[in-house]
Amino acid sequence: MSETHSEVVALARALIQRPSVTPEDAGCQAMINARLSALGFNVEEHFFVDTLNTWARKGSEGPHFCFAGHTDVVPVGNERDWRYPPFSGEIHDGMLHGRGAADMKGSLAAMVVATERFIARFPNHKGSISFLITSDEEGPFINGTTKVVDLLEARDEKIDMCLVGEPSSRDSLGDVVKNGRRGSLTGHLTIKGIQGHVAYPHLARNPIHQSTPALTELSTTQWDQGNAFFPATSFQISNIHGGTGAGNVIPGSLDVQFNFRFSTEVTAEQLKVRVCEILDKHGLDYDLHWTLNGLPFLTEPGPLLNVTLDAIKTVTGIDANPETTGGTSDGRFIAQTGCKVIELGPVNATIHQVNECVSTESLDQLAEIYELILEKLLT
Amino acid sequence: MSETHSEVVALARALIQRPSVTPEDAGCQAMINARLSALGFNVEEHFFVDTLNTWARKGSEGPHFCFAGHTDVVPVGNERDWRYPPFSGEIHDGMLHGRGAADMKGSLAAMVVATERFIARFPNHKGSISFLITSDEEGPFINGTTKVVDLLEARDEKIDMCLVGEPSSRDSLGDVVKNGRRGSLTGHLTIKGIQGHVAYPHLARNPIHQSTPALTELSTTQWDQGNAFFPATSFQISNIHGGTGAGNVIPGSLDVQFNFRFSTEVTAEQLKVRVCEILDKHGLDYDLHWTLNGLPFLTEPGPLLNVTLDAIKTVTGIDANPETTGGTSDGRFIAQTGCKVIELGPVNATIHQVNECVSTESLDQLAEIYELILEKLLT
Ligand SMILES: [Zn+2]
Ligand SMILES: [Zn+2]
Repeated sequence: MSETHSEVVALARALIQRPSVTPEDAGCQAMINARLSALGFNVEEHFFVDTLNTWARKGSEGPHFCFAGHTDVVPVGNERDWRYPPFSGEIHDGMLHGRGAADMKGSLAAMVVATERFIARFPNHKGSISFLITSDEEGPFINGTTKVVDLLEARDEKIDMCLVGEPSSRDSLGDVVKNGRRGSLTGHLTIKGIQGHVAYPHLARNPIHQSTPALTELSTTQWDQGNAFFPATSFQISNIHGGTGAGNVIPGSLDVQFNFRFSTEVTAEQLKVRVCEILDKHGLDYDLHWTLNGLPFLTEPGPLLNVTLDAIKTVTGIDANPETTGGTSDGRFIAQTGCKVIELGPVNATIHQVNECVSTESLDQLAEIYELILEKLLT
Repeated sequence: MSETHSEVVALARALIQRPSVTPEDAGCQAMINARLSALGFNVEEHFFVDTLNTWARKGSEGPHFCFAGHTDVVPVGNERDWRYPPFSGEIHDGMLHGRGAADMKGSLAAMVVATERFIARFPNHKGSISFLITSDEEGPFINGTTKVVDLLEARDEKIDMCLVGEPSSRDSLGDVVKNGRRGSLTGHLTIKGIQGHVAYPHLARNPIHQSTPALTELSTTQWDQGNAFFPATSFQISNIHGGTGAGNVIPGSLDVQFNFRFSTEVTAEQLKVRVCEILDKHGLDYDLHWTLNGLPFLTEPGPLLNVTLDAIKTVTGIDANPETTGGTSDGRFIAQTGCKVIELGPVNATIHQVNECVSTESLDQLAEIYELILEKLLT
């Protein structure tokens, strides 16, 4: 590896070589922030409990454009399953290898270099540029973006447009951008029966037997039809546990955990009511607790989405597809403030797996796209 | 406790005072066997792995009548929850207290004393009397009665009629005798899906969603109507487990354990076929393993049952009810040889619980009943 690499790839490699397994930052933000400071950014670092967060801004005028991302990565799993050491950042056949290459140290590197180039070309650009970076996106997302957003709200600092660097692309860079995300609602259900011996079922009430018709109805219900931007709301049971382990005991209760990914056609409150209606209809005795993991958000066609699609077309020739599918992202916290949010990053085929990697060419193109977006929005 | 007690109660107490938690015998069989030897029984002790078994027989002619029972007891649970120490054998207000008082050291004492009295009265009785006693009835029942039965079969030694001392009575001594037991068949089912992320259900196949309609059908199917001696076959799911613990993962498989208690109207093989038909009909991909815990047995009205009902009526005035409900017992192993099997013992209200106890009067009556059965069958 004696060849020289582009600025973007060199920075991505240096970030990969810092083993920032969530919620560790491992010095990644310091490396980024030194370069932002050199550009004239005002850099704030906010450490909450176990999480390092950066809020860096250059300029005080509108429009206010923000790059958002995370330095933390998911664990590597069994290191011996990796072709190249996961924190080495090795490059082979045009692919940069390592944990975080695609999710999302490559995007962070592209954002920094794009900003450097943009400011060098347009030192007197209009508006403001900011970076919101956390080290807990892959963890419980309690002490990261949401806390920084609270802090900005408290001092009435508004972001107008935000680009999150999550790896949105499916087969090649820019084929998919996310212009929204579904909401996520989890139910923790305990169905109560009466424990007993299998030889005396008339003295017991089997909560498993009682529940299966209701669970069938929940898993086959059409909750909505989705809309032009969202697929239909989906329901999945993720965990079910009942039984003492003994083969001759009818258990006294059954625990079920389920999750909705929901569109903007239905509210979390409506889903809760409909679930209870189904459970009640089947005559179940139950406890039910809810966790709202995130509300849905949507950035409808407008300047931010149009500029992003144009920049992708110019750099890659691709007509990108805006989607709202997939998991949640920190975009949901930023969108709650009324900010327009778009997610655009590299191909996600290898994220959260062994042998995570990204094409070096795509990282260079990503920096070009980001720079073009800045140019179109802030000049 | 300066009063003197009957022979039966004194022996039951002495047995309770030996803490024979399964598979321990703690000297109980030695105590019994000394008395049987003195009566002229030929006593064999067979120790298999961790279990002490006694096979004692007096006489070599037919008819061959056997008393069967066990010296082991279930654990006491939290000793501080007991009103009287569980291995003290204290007597208060006419009740003998302690672990095993009802299940089934009281019955063993009644059998021994009944046999002594019968032989004293009829030294030249016809036929043979035997005792089959184990110390693993409350455990995995691998090294107990079933092994002794194998040994008897191997040497072609046949039992014609057997009385098992399990506590069959519900409210007062002799109100219920068991003239059979249902079979017990356990299924260990794994339904295979495809693991995935709840946000991408189209890439996964949720084994919980797939299974609930089949589980509903299994739990609502009428397997048979039972018959004059057996209640209808029952099906109960005892354990169900699926899920990784994570709320956003669709599990790759679901484990379900279920149990049939089945009548003589259906065979284990028929149940297996019908379960597979239901699973196949619902298009499930599954593994299924079976454990046959016991075949059903039935002792239809005839000399053994009639004599038992007569003896109960004579001693207690009660018209006993023959039933085949409840759990399995070692009777199933003995019945497989073609032997007629009846179960008759004290009130089972407190068995396997804290404060197990039995009325001393009922133990004395039980010995009278047992003695009368011997008289009616062997003189
Ligand atoms: Zn990410
Ligand atoms: Zn017992």
